[in-house]
Amino acid sequence: MNFLEKRIVEDGVVKEGNVLKVDSFLNHQMDVALIDKIGKAFYRKFSHKPITKVLTIESSGIAIAYAVARQFGVPFVFAKKSKSINLDGDMYVAEVLSYTGKKKNTVIVSKKFLNSDDRVLIVDDFLANGCALQGLISIVESAGASVEGCCIAIEKGFQDGGWRIRNLGYPVESLAIIASMDAETGKIKFR
Amino acid sequence: MNFLEKRIVEDGVVKEGNVLKVDSFLNHQMDVALIDKIGKAFYRKFSHKPITKVLTIESSGIAIAYAVARQFGVPFVFAKKSKSINLDGDMYVAEVLSYTGKKKNTVIVSKKFLNSDDRVLIVDDFLANGCALQGLISIVESAGASVEGCCIAIEKGFQDGGWRIRNLGYPVESLAIIASMDAETGKIKFR
Repeated sequence: MNFLEKRIVEDGVVKEGNVLKVDSFLNHQMDVALIDKIGKAFYRKFSHKPITKVLTIESSGIAIAYAVARQFGVPFVFAKKSKSINLDGDMYVAEVLSYTGKKKNTVIVSKKFLNSDDRVLIVDDFLANGCALQGLISIVESAGASVEGCCIAIEKGFQDGGWRIRNLGYPVESLAIIASMDAETGKIKFR
Repeated sequence: MNFLEKRIVEDGVVKEGNVLKVDSFLNHQMDVALIDKIGKAFYRKFSHKPITKVLTIESSGIAIAYAVARQFGVPFVFAKKSKSINLDGDMYVAEVLSYTGKKKNTVIVSKKFLNSDDRVLIVDDFLANGCALQGLISIVESAGASVEGCCIAIEKGFQDGGWRIRNLGYPVESLAIIASMDAETGKIKFR
């Protein structure tokens, strides 16, 4: 087991409906040293690529994107989930179905911050059905930029998002891939 | 002018309705080196205090909170704006009126992540009418924890949030306090 899998076993909580709660260290209370380590792990996986930008989606991707972007010395952009009056001008837009929220979100990135020269790493905390990731990929491609890779902290390997996106040819690196989990026993198996 | 004021003058854009757009470096595209520097600046201001936790609100506070929390070597927590099925159990709740979004948000923090021993630094990107900050303060106090200080990147000094919260006795440190700004000329004056 790597450092993240160990932490998931120690502090993650399995709930009914295939929900894995990691809110004590990854998406509500944040363990800064752990997230720094996640940033370094993704840097090692993609350091051979000339990354110019990191892209994530609010909110739980932001800290991980920051940690990754710091390693590469590039800016990161977070896609926003709804239109605010502070975001004017032209946007790239994608529709994303949220797994946990069970609602449709419009995801936007200002055209100012992605262009055809960009070589982008996409970062998120979870990959399950892949809707969020697919939305981010479509935004990068709308900009004419290239998706150099996808950095996922925790992938639910029993859902098909990871399979679908790898099948489209995108390199997806997940630090922890869950093969199965059981709400009754609390047991988590990694792939 | 300090480093943040300089950056605001260089890359901030003043819009009608007292809107200051800093989306190229602070709340959409993020300049990692700048945010690291903001984290260090707040550490210098509060390093004499025994901080145990940093608290912010999603989304644009998250990166700054991370930078501050790293300096103190403590976890950070971000308050969430709506109830998700991934957030169960007991919550601290506050009602917050958003300035830019013009809507009311319910802001929640899980009771697991704030307790009466905590000495909390609150972090946010903007302070205008002070509603978000007041919501976070009320959450800290609901937990019986102490507010050791408030770290604000940009304060709109011509709105009364900063005055009201300092008047209640909370130490508020803002890196850039805008005295006035003019959408027609683009000029920004700092206090």
